[in-house]
Amino acid sequence: MSAADRPLLSNPRSERVKQVAALGRRAARERSGTFLVEGPQAVRELLGYAASAARALYLTATAEERHAEIADVALAAGVPIWTCTEEVLAAMADTGAPQGMVAVADRVDAPLPDVLDAIGDGDTVVVLTHVRDPGNAGTVLRGASAFGAAAVLVSDASVDVYNPKVVRSTVGALFHLPVSIGIPVAELLEACRERGIRLLAADGSGSTPLPDADLSGTHAWVMGNEAWGLAPEVLDGCDQVVSIPIARAESLNLAMAATVCLHASAATRASRARR
Amino acid sequence: MSAADRPLLSNPRSERVKQVAALGRRAARERSGTFLVEGPQAVRELLGYAASAARALYLTATAEERHAEIADVALAAGVPIWTCTEEVLAAMADTGAPQGMVAVADRVDAPLPDVLDAIGDGDTVVVLTHVRDPGNAGTVLRGASAFGAAAVLVSDASVDVYNPKVVRSTVGALFHLPVSIGIPVAELLEACRERGIRLLAADGSGSTPLPDADLSGTHAWVMGNEAWGLAPEVLDGCDQVVSIPIARAESLNLAMAATVCLHASAATRASRARR
Repeated sequence: MSAADRPLLSNPRSERVKQVAALGRRAARERSGTFLVEGPQAVRELLGYAASAARALYLTATAEERHAEIADVALAAGVPIWTCTEEVLAAMADTGAPQGMVAVADRVDAPLPDVLDAIGDGDTVVVLTHVRDPGNAGTVLRGASAFGAAAVLVSDASVDVYNPKVVRSTVGALFHLPVSIGIPVAELLEACRERGIRLLAADGSGSTPLPDADLSGTHAWVMGNEAWGLAPEVLDGCDQVVSIPIARAESLNLAMAATVCLHASAATRASRARR
Repeated sequence: MSAADRPLLSNPRSERVKQVAALGRRAARERSGTFLVEGPQAVRELLGYAASAARALYLTATAEERHAEIADVALAAGVPIWTCTEEVLAAMADTGAPQGMVAVADRVDAPLPDVLDAIGDGDTVVVLTHVRDPGNAGTVLRGASAFGAAAVLVSDASVDVYNPKVVRSTVGALFHLPVSIGIPVAELLEACRERGIRLLAADGSGSTPLPDADLSGTHAWVMGNEAWGLAPEVLDGCDQVVSIPIARAESLNLAMAATVCLHASAATRASRARR
């Protein structure tokens, strides 16, 4: 159905618009099992890597003109498309500027055993515990994807990865990465140990400087909250506590620390592959 | 003068409040040569590392109780302190949550020749060109400080480093680092070359992967805009174009790329120091 034949959503107070807008709230996301994907870049990644999760695409006529290829991919994948007025789009979106396009998608996380099964020998995993800041959490997911991590495991006491701010910060990484969420920290650590995954706590208090950390085998980076600190029981449960040598205390945020650790793991894997 | 003896600023529409609030705008900052420092952490760094630049401290009674040591340091440094109502503080601040405290400070950048004079043998420098996103720019400054860079040089076509969003993202790094701003890119590159500083462009298109880059001598990381790209004339002016090996194209933002590059430089300096 071409854009001209589609009905136009023009009432920002309609039930459908309210249901989409409600996905800005965690309760509505959990009830429906769906979440908001905002902006052309994230929608493109959704359709490219997890098209079967896409439930609906909402876009303005202007956005469709500018990103015709996105509507084409959605059509080919059988995703229902709705043309919206600017006002309707703004009412649906969580962010001020979704560039005329939002999608609704089914959750893309997987059960912990499935995600663990996908982890291969020598792989890098990320474990997020008590991470509360959406931007930091999203950037860690983005870094995990950029540096080829095999999976991200998110503890139950962390920010919802389907929070629109997290989704925005991942810039599509959520659709590339095996992700498992909502597991108690102790259970996550135990599951990793059982699979022979070495647990490396990333923490400013660590006694092992990053250059001395052993990144050669299958390992998980265990990351804590924004102050870049981990709870004592989490630190105790890890095999090594690793710190990044810095010029001033507390001068890295979680996203920066994670970026450095994940890059180090990727560099180690790459140098091993060359040997 | 103790808090009880100080006059209370209670009129959010007063001339003084308007003048402080105006510092959210570039024109007012340039006219006055001052900028806003928001929140206890940033104010603490201002008073600890650049107290002579502090012009005034505004705080609520609650914030003064919670951070008595900050008011003490300001008093000792002769910085005028004003107690404000919550309403006045909110009217002054650019951010929604400055935790009851803002300061006004004189610009802390220095002339380019002075900053260049402070660069020692083997040091790392950051050159920012056409960086527009305040959060990215601030995080790069934060990373430069964390990883012991000797200076940051900001081109004229970049975001204002005194933009409150940049200042917030630096988390005080602005007060630790020699910074020079507003210089045309070509002039910045030429000045570095004259001093024998090798110019390393950080760019996704680079033919030298980071592990192969020579970080041993005095060098500058030349960083471009948010899409992590540099203008052709900037690339041409650099000695080497370095890329970070990643699993997917365009999966790092500027702040992440800068963090990785600056960490690599710091690690190289550290390993040289150990030899």
